[in-house]
Amino acid sequence: MPADEIAQNPPSPLSSAFAAVLDSVLEHARPEASGAVATYIPELAVQDPEQLGIALASVRGTVHEAGDSAAEFTIQSVSKPFVFALALEQHGLAEVMRHVGLEPSGEPFNAISLDEQTGRPLNPMINAGAIVSSSLIRGDSAEEKFQVIGAGLSAFAGRSLDVDEAVFESEVATGDRNRALAYLARSAGTLASTSDVATTAYFRQCAVNVNARDLAIMAATLAGGGVNPVTRERVVREDVARWTTAVMTSCGMYDASGEWLVRVGLPAKSGVGGGIAALQPEQFGIGTFSPRLDARGNSVRGISMLESLSERHGLHMLEHRDAPLSPIAEIAIGSPGAPDAASGTPHAADAGDVTAVLRGELTFGDAEEVLTRLLPILESGRGLTLDFAAVTRVGEPAARIFEWASTSLGETSGGRARVQLHDPAGVLGG
Amino acid sequence: MPADEIAQNPPSPLSSAFAAVLDSVLEHARPEASGAVATYIPELAVQDPEQLGIALASVRGTVHEAGDSAAEFTIQSVSKPFVFALALEQHGLAEVMRHVGLEPSGEPFNAISLDEQTGRPLNPMINAGAIVSSSLIRGDSAEEKFQVIGAGLSAFAGRSLDVDEAVFESEVATGDRNRALAYLARSAGTLASTSDVATTAYFRQCAVNVNARDLAIMAATLAGGGVNPVTRERVVREDVARWTTAVMTSCGMYDASGEWLVRVGLPAKSGVGGGIAALQPEQFGIGTFSPRLDARGNSVRGISMLESLSERHGLHMLEHRDAPLSPIAEIAIGSPGAPDAASGTPHAADAGDVTAVLRGELTFGDAEEVLTRLLPILESGRGLTLDFAAVTRVGEPAARIFEWASTSLGETSGGRARVQLHDPAGVLGG
Amino acid sequence: MPADEIAQNPPSPLSSAFAAVLDSVLEHARPEASGAVATYIPELAVQDPEQLGIALASVRGTVHEAGDSAAEFTIQSVSKPFVFALALEQHGLAEVMRHVGLEPSGEPFNAISLDEQTGRPLNPMINAGAIVSSSLIRGDSAEEKFQVIGAGLSAFAGRSLDVDEAVFESEVATGDRNRALAYLARSAGTLASTSDVATTAYFRQCAVNVNARDLAIMAATLAGGGVNPVTRERVVREDVARWTTAVMTSCGMYDASGEWLVRVGLPAKSGVGGGIAALQPEQFGIGTFSPRLDARGNSVRGISMLESLSERHGLHMLEHRDAPLSPIAEIAIGSPGAPDAASGTPHAADAGDVTAVLRGELTFGDAEEVLTRLLPILESGRGLTLDFAAVTRVGEPAARIFEWASTSLGETSGGRARVQLHDPAGVLGG
Amino acid sequence: MPADEIAQNPPSPLSSAFAAVLDSVLEHARPEASGAVATYIPELAVQDPEQLGIALASVRGTVHEAGDSAAEFTIQSVSKPFVFALALEQHGLAEVMRHVGLEPSGEPFNAISLDEQTGRPLNPMINAGAIVSSSLIRGDSAEEKFQVIGAGLSAFAGRSLDVDEAVFESEVATGDRNRALAYLARSAGTLASTSDVATTAYFRQCAVNVNARDLAIMAATLAGGGVNPVTRERVVREDVARWTTAVMTSCGMYDASGEWLVRVGLPAKSGVGGGIAALQPEQFGIGTFSPRLDARGNSVRGISMLESLSERHGLHMLEHRDAPLSPIAEIAIGSPGAPDAASGTPHAADAGDVTAVLRGELTFGDAEEVLTRLLPILESGRGLTLDFAAVTRVGEPAARIFEWASTSLGETSGGRARVQLHDPAGVLGG
Repeated sequence: MPADEIAQNPPSPLSSAFAAVLDSVLEHARPEASGAVATYIPELAVQDPEQLGIALASVRGTVHEAGDSAAEFTIQSVSKPFVFALALEQHGLAEVMRHVGLEPSGEPFNAISLDEQTGRPLNPMINAGAIVSSSLIRGDSAEEKFQVIGAGLSAFAGRSLDVDEAVFESEVATGDRNRALAYLARSAGTLASTSDVATTAYFRQCAVNVNARDLAIMAATLAGGGVNPVTRERVVREDVARWTTAVMTSCGMYDASGEWLVRVGLPAKSGVGGGIAALQPEQFGIGTFSPRLDARGNSVRGISMLESLSERHGLHMLEHRDAPLSPIAEIAIGSPGAPDAASGTPHAADAGDVTAVLRGELTFGDAEEVLTRLLPILESGRGLTLDFAAVTRVGEPAARIFEWASTSLGETSGGRARVQLHDPAGVLGG
Repeated sequence: MPADEIAQNPPSPLSSAFAAVLDSVLEHARPEASGAVATYIPELAVQDPEQLGIALASVRGTVHEAGDSAAEFTIQSVSKPFVFALALEQHGLAEVMRHVGLEPSGEPFNAISLDEQTGRPLNPMINAGAIVSSSLIRGDSAEEKFQVIGAGLSAFAGRSLDVDEAVFESEVATGDRNRALAYLARSAGTLASTSDVATTAYFRQCAVNVNARDLAIMAATLAGGGVNPVTRERVVREDVARWTTAVMTSCGMYDASGEWLVRVGLPAKSGVGGGIAALQPEQFGIGTFSPRLDARGNSVRGISMLESLSERHGLHMLEHRDAPLSPIAEIAIGSPGAPDAASGTPHAADAGDVTAVLRGELTFGDAEEVLTRLLPILESGRGLTLDFAAVTRVGEPAARIFEWASTSLGETSGGRARVQLHDPAGVLGG
Repeated sequence: MPADEIAQNPPSPLSSAFAAVLDSVLEHARPEASGAVATYIPELAVQDPEQLGIALASVRGTVHEAGDSAAEFTIQSVSKPFVFALALEQHGLAEVMRHVGLEPSGEPFNAISLDEQTGRPLNPMINAGAIVSSSLIRGDSAEEKFQVIGAGLSAFAGRSLDVDEAVFESEVATGDRNRALAYLARSAGTLASTSDVATTAYFRQCAVNVNARDLAIMAATLAGGGVNPVTRERVVREDVARWTTAVMTSCGMYDASGEWLVRVGLPAKSGVGGGIAALQPEQFGIGTFSPRLDARGNSVRGISMLESLSERHGLHMLEHRDAPLSPIAEIAIGSPGAPDAASGTPHAADAGDVTAVLRGELTFGDAEEVLTRLLPILESGRGLTLDFAAVTRVGEPAARIFEWASTSLGETSGGRARVQLHDPAGVLGG
Repeated sequence: MPADEIAQNPPSPLSSAFAAVLDSVLEHARPEASGAVATYIPELAVQDPEQLGIALASVRGTVHEAGDSAAEFTIQSVSKPFVFALALEQHGLAEVMRHVGLEPSGEPFNAISLDEQTGRPLNPMINAGAIVSSSLIRGDSAEEKFQVIGAGLSAFAGRSLDVDEAVFESEVATGDRNRALAYLARSAGTLASTSDVATTAYFRQCAVNVNARDLAIMAATLAGGGVNPVTRERVVREDVARWTTAVMTSCGMYDASGEWLVRVGLPAKSGVGGGIAALQPEQFGIGTFSPRLDARGNSVRGISMLESLSERHGLHMLEHRDAPLSPIAEIAIGSPGAPDAASGTPHAADAGDVTAVLRGELTFGDAEEVLTRLLPILESGRGLTLDFAAVTRVGEPAARIFEWASTSLGETSGGRARVQLHDPAGVLGG
């Protein structure tokens, strides 16, 4: 937005809380002068090295942006986890694992890294594995495969992405090493198409244009279990999103993935176009863009911004949260929802029955806590009503435990189930 | 508990919800007949191969057990993450990283795996790195170092652990390969003591006796951010627990860590004594025991039980939870806590002011959601009270955002802060 | 020769000395029942596994044969040293070394084995290096390159070799791994043509038909310093033959080259067609044929025959020979060739002059011996005539030493050169 | 020799032929200013970096020297092939190969390089393999082992060598990596003593003082089949000398052994003390000394001198020699040694019998040539006498062929053996 427009429309103070967060990490990274724009193809070499942008998309669909978040660049290797997810969606984990492994290679992006016994590329984040992922996508020709890939990446991004044809041509012209990797996988029986079909689809996928906002939304789609938070479209299944996030966690940063997980804790994937997609599972996707790369091929200032976000704002995926309050908010004699509610029921609650008001988000661990703590009540022979009215959500494993308690623990002397569930909002699910 | 005692004291139906979970995974694993007891030292070879136990400890301190959960065995490599944590606690991450790396090696436990440039063992979960961890523990002699290590492991377990002296002697007698690894690290300048001191301390640490319950509590201490959930003692700092969990996540299962994270998602460490410690961050520690090992040296039935727990009960650390309800439970005109509360305040709430009742556990992402959604209210000029009474907890990054809103967004025309925080339970901290 | 012709011309008893040697090693190997015919292409799988032949060609051009020495098979990897020699002949050692290394890889034939720094295949005996050799041969197209290669192999063999077109087609159809190696070399900048041109030429070269006799003569051409001993045609320069022999010595047997040199000492190269070419430098080329291969892809019975030849007949290239007699056969007062010879010379030999009759093949070491031993004669002031009449040959470095002595050591009091060379047969060369 | 002594005793002109060769290669190397003295122990760091010496010892026992050929330095890794030879002498090849491999490692001297399957160090020229060699030497203690080693090295050198105790102490003090290699070998079951005994013996062996002249004689002992050419003592068996030379050929120059064999062709072993021992089998040993080392730990100017010797003087072990004259010097009617000789024999030679005068050094190949060329004579029914009077030597495989011809080819019509051997000098052996 031009300066005079800003003067007329001052940014709303509230939204600027998040703009301030992003601006701050962006300006913190700006002075980083090291690194160089990728030059292996001329199209990348002409990028303005000073471009710098960031976007953050929540799993609820809000997107915040700062800097050159709308500047386009080619997605390159950032496409790898998303195409891997598409392959998983089509074939399932077992079948995909017949073709590509899940282990960190401790090696650079273009390493050969085929497993000696199986011939599988070690993981889908290195080129060899990514080409195998592309080969697994449905379609006989490179065109058919790319149609699926392009549509899938667009669904992740929530808008129709196009291809930078000049970059694609250059990739084709300089792609001998990738062709070698494809032939190696082919000769090991792990490539699911001809070498030429796989590499052509892969080169095209690498040349897809995106911006930092796109990457944020794509990552947020994984963070949100496979549903694009902006379009609300389910792009991949929940398990596919989880598997993909797991592989980004262990292999996303090539030979520095272990240290990245320790220090930053945001599963991420970078590309030589200057982009990085990262996520905090369940919460955010983040996209960064800055073309200067370090020796490993990662965007220098993109890395810096993600480090800041993790360190300053506690976004590490393993960040410990203070012990929550007990999931039991209150224990009271009587039924929830007042006297009149009780009166219409076939078996009136016994006088000494107890209602436990639960709260928060209930995990398997919370279910364990609730039942363990309330055990003495049941042992004393009284009925127990669990009140879920103030509960935000109940995980499926926890819900199963509560239902088991309700149906299996027998009845009180009054003939009521010993454990009753009061769930006006239906958080226990079907 | 002996059989006749059980007959007299039938397990309470409620606690048996969790006993049932553990019994079920235990019985599911029992038929696994493959694998063999470790034989590299005679003391391990005499173990009863059929022993089978599991324990689960919540971060709130409850421990559930099934099978031979009280049977003792030597901790062996399960000690590695905990001694690594002790080294981190004493020296910090940067200093420890001068001595040992954080990258998966893709190699077996006894691999040499020293980084070519730095001479550091690739990570602290392989023997070479574990010996370096032990060398970093304070103390000049092996005895002094082990005193610290033994005390630390005991603090993790919440009881005083002792050493199986016969196993220790056997480790000393057969430890040439570990001595070789120590000398390699020493010659590379990464060992922090003499080779003999480091290996003696390490052999002793491997010979510490534990049971499945101990391992569950030790792991729960990491899951709970460094505080032993039973003794309530802080054993290591929060960041140390996070770093250690991260290394277990990426390197804990040797050359199968990537697949383990994808399929099971419970950071874990196994030992040739038959034990495994695993955890779901923020929720649980799990200890398993079964002496028969697979070719990689992992307990066959321990692995099986952890797989069941993850698959059947959704305990994968990256398991997606259904999108929570909005953190905003209700929006109402007026102040919380009723009319009389308003009347003594210097600046009465304006008639059109709005109260938003928040709920659940509020993360950075929730703070973002709250402020973003309520932006139109503020833009309309009305005051906004955020009511935290029903909020279970607020993460520190989120709390900072709410405080920023309260102090920085100015006043209403009535002179009140435009954003007021109603926090009767003090969940915002500070 | 047909059976009835043999009946009329029984083998001469003398030539059967060598037939007996070859028959003996052949029959010794015949019972070896292990190994299996190559099956990666159908054309190889149909070979009669029991075929067994051997031929031995001396550097003087005699060829002895036994068994199925005339049976044809495809040359496969046995072509590698010879095409490497052709590349050396065209480009010289320095240029070829820019494209391919000379170090043993310790790896199987189809290993990738590219040097990390330079991208060069480690040596020309593994597939990657052999494809680079083929790419270096002059010619723009695969056809042009193969024309040169085919002519070169034919020159080595001394007859026009043709291609098994069915095998060639199969190689093309199954050659993905070799294509991968070519693309890797291409992307590393070490392939001297397109990948397709190099692999097509290489596949064709592997499909050239030869028999054991051909391989013996090809190897004898290297043993004889580059001259085909049968046709007397110089195929490659002496230095090229030496370099090629050196590479066969260090890298010819893949990951067992070191042990082969210790135990057998006959530089060799095998092919999956069942052939092996081996040589004893300066003396022999040997060709063997037997289609059953061991796990490394070497002909089981070919290996056995070469081991027998080395062990029983002392053909190890480093076999120690008993210390030769002194190169000085006799020392006499006076000139060689009798009194009358002396009389026509301008400066009659002094009465006390000495003639040393030399003998044998004189190396640099012999020249050292001669001059060192005869030093006292010269120091005593007498003239010395070195008589080369009975000398079989004089190496060039030795000849240079004798000439230096003759021209640089001054004159006797009688005005004759202090050291005179009597060389009626001209063994000292120009 | 001091300068004034030289003035009084000018070098004899004849011996200076070889002095000139050595001086020339020495002065050619002198300007090489690159490299640095080893500094890993202080005792090596104080060496005068400009020292430069060379010595050449023939298998006949003459030693030529130039420069600082008498300056002492510690033998270091040059001891490896000689101690390997001592181990072979004591245990034989098969037993030694159970402990150490024979394959080039393609890795630096201090690489770990243990075979994955067998645990054997890849070859005896890297430290791990050399320590295993030392462990194999007879003796229970390090002292006993070193007594054998010291005596063996002294026998190779032809004089009693002593130990630089200060260097030995430093090796002990800094030897952690070597201790690691010993423990690795020990744990793999390939070390034949305790780790401490093996490394102590090895450190002591490395600290033996030698000079360039010693190294030349040691290498000449290998070149001469195991007999010290100066003392005439047999130090090791012929086969041991051959096996040791073979291992130096394939593994002596660490990761550049292949290129060294192609370009220089003098099996060699260098040490960080600045020495190199090299040899041309059957002819020479060469010792060089110059303390400045290249990045691989090889003496810069030592390498340069060996390259000059090979290139300028044709000393490459695979150097092709011009085709020798025929081994048949002359064919004449009648018996050798004149009419009177014939007359005492029981069966007078037939009138048409033929005498072939042989010459030179007769190999298996020459025997083949002789019998093949003379076949027509025998086929014509005439007797054949082979005259060995002018033959310098006959290899054992060749002698066996001649004897076979003499005893197996029947008799002439006159009752004489069809093939008679005239061997006045007994070159055909027993």
